[in-house]
Amino acid sequence: MPDANRQVVLARRPDGAASVDDFKLVEVALAPLGEGEVRVRGHFLSLDPYMRGRMNDAKSYAAPQRLGEVMGGGAVGVVVESRNPAWAVGDKVVGPMGWQEYFTGDGSGLNKVDDTRIPLSAFLGSVGMPGVTAWHGLHRICKPQPGETVAVSAASGAVGSVVGQLARRLGCRVVGVAGGAEKCAYVRDTLGFDACVDYKAGNLQADLAAAAPNGIDGYFDNVGGVVLDAVMERMNVFGRIAVCGAIAGYDGKPPVLRQPRLILVNRLVMQGFIVSDHMAEWPAALQELGSLVAEGALLFRESVAEGLASAPEAFIGMLHGKNFGKQLVRLAQLDRSRA
Amino acid sequence: MPDANRQVVLARRPDGAASVDDFKLVEVALAPLGEGEVRVRGHFLSLDPYMRGRMNDAKSYAAPQRLGEVMGGGAVGVVVESRNPAWAVGDKVVGPMGWQEYFTGDGSGLNKVDDTRIPLSAFLGSVGMPGVTAWHGLHRICKPQPGETVAVSAASGAVGSVVGQLARRLGCRVVGVAGGAEKCAYVRDTLGFDACVDYKAGNLQADLAAAAPNGIDGYFDNVGGVVLDAVMERMNVFGRIAVCGAIAGYDGKPPVLRQPRLILVNRLVMQGFIVSDHMAEWPAALQELGSLVAEGALLFRESVAEGLASAPEAFIGMLHGKNFGKQLVRLAQLDRSRA
Repeated sequence: MPDANRQVVLARRPDGAASVDDFKLVEVALAPLGEGEVRVRGHFLSLDPYMRGRMNDAKSYAAPQRLGEVMGGGAVGVVVESRNPAWAVGDKVVGPMGWQEYFTGDGSGLNKVDDTRIPLSAFLGSVGMPGVTAWHGLHRICKPQPGETVAVSAASGAVGSVVGQLARRLGCRVVGVAGGAEKCAYVRDTLGFDACVDYKAGNLQADLAAAAPNGIDGYFDNVGGVVLDAVMERMNVFGRIAVCGAIAGYDGKPPVLRQPRLILVNRLVMQGFIVSDHMAEWPAALQELGSLVAEGALLFRESVAEGLASAPEAFIGMLHGKNFGKQLVRLAQLDRSRA
Repeated sequence: MPDANRQVVLARRPDGAASVDDFKLVEVALAPLGEGEVRVRGHFLSLDPYMRGRMNDAKSYAAPQRLGEVMGGGAVGVVVESRNPAWAVGDKVVGPMGWQEYFTGDGSGLNKVDDTRIPLSAFLGSVGMPGVTAWHGLHRICKPQPGETVAVSAASGAVGSVVGQLARRLGCRVVGVAGGAEKCAYVRDTLGFDACVDYKAGNLQADLAAAAPNGIDGYFDNVGGVVLDAVMERMNVFGRIAVCGAIAGYDGKPPVLRQPRLILVNRLVMQGFIVSDHMAEWPAALQELGSLVAEGALLFRESVAEGLASAPEAFIGMLHGKNFGKQLVRLAQLDRSRA
């Protein structure tokens, strides 16, 4: 049994842009399990944009991350010790286990997963929180009808890739927005979106107009800022905007919305949401998403950083769009930890 | 029978702020009625903020007002001639009769009204388009629950006064926002709102915080701009904002929305609407509003300008908040026109 655990803690709050120096890698002793406790060896840690908001000591939808404590976050792993009859060694689990190699708890918050047909890491992406986020925002807020046009930003990412593929299955024209030609080619050619606009190419408004000749009926916004402003100008009457992320404003000064009058002129709905407000929907959504992934009908891509120590750099990179698909950190090799 | 009609036409489009010189008063001959036609003597003309948007040649929810043509607008009046069996001399009607003394048409768009228990002018206000606007935005978008706090801007106006009184009847705490101490006193003391914030007093944020100590759950926005920005900072989680008007942006450069991130942080819904998109709701809403007015349970106030020639000045004044309650233009004395 292991006797040491490595963790990444929040060392200080960012002043403006977040940096790797805001984090600290620490090593702590692992106490023997108490009665009712379970210990999980983490295999993959999920890095998600919402974590940036929690680094600030400001009102947000999640309570601030506490200084000096393990960074919060979802992970998947395998039970390696148990003094709780509900959990057996070898169980695969997903849950909020944080940025650390070993998680110890009473099992609350953990869920068993079956990785026989779905890769374990997918439970942090398309068959996890990002997937349900996509599912909820698309079905409950964008509510697209067949033939309508749906746009989604951060289209190659963990959430955006699911939004677009689900919308295509509904019979919509789907337009992605992503940063760079390589991501756009993947979104179009591999994920099957009808079009993808490279927001870094410098012609955002013209390219959007060409990609969405009939305007946009539903927009799933992961970024805010200039992309949101540009999409709003293309929204059709009675359009719906699901506000899921505002990564454009995470470092420094949050951007304004340039033309709120369009909400009135075009009778738009803009609705912010957080998937953890809608836990009752998770089982059905995960069932659907899991089936699609198992059938190969829902594709995804991952950027995997190696080892816990690489998490801060991978996280900062993700905030600047350096990831390509779902950003993960591999905490352990599956074979090794099974031994 | 009259042989001349006076009209106000749009002489030019405003460059920045609208002015009385954008309008022109003209006199035209009244042709004899054709078969199937009806002629109405206007008694009251309604002046409404949406008309400002139509003066521009820009995309808005209504088609632009055409240059040289009679300004569009709702009015109430009395049928004075008819060659249409559906309409009798003496019928009281409401409809889109425009800025003119006499309206001639085939009767489409006109509705008969019963002014035995409701003043004729109220069919342009609390029992007309502004009333239904209030009803729809409150019930369908703000959706307040008893005990919640509802805020409304332009609170002494035709729409805002109805929003607040209906919300009070639902058991909500109601906070108005209005310009000046006199309007605020009326909103509080006569209309019975729990509080009213004078946005001209220079302490908008602090005054709002004091008036809405438990935050704001539903906001009915008639103005946009700095008032919307300030209210958004007080919105509670899962708050609903009905975007009904943007009078702050009608002259010159439309304002930005300063903190769109709050839509996400607080999972807000912002929804723009136009009451003419919801015609199916009008009969039930007007029935309810008419009963309340007839019972004296829904109060309203009017600013009445005398004579068609005064309409442009009254309209410009209304855009700057000089009206106090529903802005009307008296086109004819009821007694005289009945003769």
